[in-house]
Amino acid sequence: MDPDVLAKAFVEHYYTTFDNNRGGLATLYQEGSMLTFEGQKIQGSPNIVAKLTSLPFQQCHHSITTVDCQPSGANGGMLVFVSGNLQLAGEQYALKFSQMFHLMPTPQGSYYVMNDIFRLNYA
Amino acid sequence: MDPDVLAKAFVEHYYTTFDNNRGGLATLYQEGSMLTFEGQKIQGSPNIVAKLTSLPFQQCHHSITTVDCQPSGANGGMLVFVSGNLQLAGEQYALKFSQMFHLMPTPQGSYYVMNDIFRLNYA
Repeated sequence: MDPDVLAKAFVEHYYTTFDNNRGGLATLYQEGSMLTFEGQKIQGSPNIVAKLTSLPFQQCHHSITTVDCQPSGANGGMLVFVSGNLQLAGEQYALKFSQMFHLMPTPQGSYYVMNDIFRLNYA
Repeated sequence: MDPDVLAKAFVEHYYTTFDNNRGGLATLYQEGSMLTFEGQKIQGSPNIVAKLTSLPFQQCHHSITTVDCQPSGANGGMLVFVSGNLQLAGEQYALKFSQMFHLMPTPQGSYYVMNDIFRLNYA
């Protein structure tokens, strides 16, 4: 499969899940997965999902501006770099963000998130 | 060495070289290195440096806002995620950018850039 197509499909799936069923992100991370969220380091699927579901907003909508991807050189791994806007319910202006994922293939032919780094881009 | 200290040292070295001696970046990339610059894919140190030295500005100054890093899981590799400002000579306003590097260790105990993805963050 074309890596760019795969990266876009992952990104669409990830943010749709985030916006509609945040707890469902648990299946995309594993025990060794790492998230750095605004500088805070979190490891393991349960801790990562606990962080994401406890963010101080309920309804949100991510819209994607750019998706770039490259093979990471690590056993079929793929680096995905995203920029976009995060609209929180009740807020007038969207927040800009950048996020990178390092995806690793699973034995089932799918991918999980090995590395995840998220930053808001303050104007 | 503390990975965060190493990441910050790399980032400082990279942008100081970019701002003062852009051609000197050649030593930080290798033949298999990949750069995605504003969506354009370039491979190999000579092509990457040709791209960076042909950007339509001579003098610039990068200032770094955040540096995050994680081990990539690939043979001592390290993911480094940067946000910052790029000031071009003669321009009133700085450009915001995000950039990620995948660093791999060299046999000499140093690191080279395996993956590099750069995006301007338009307001």
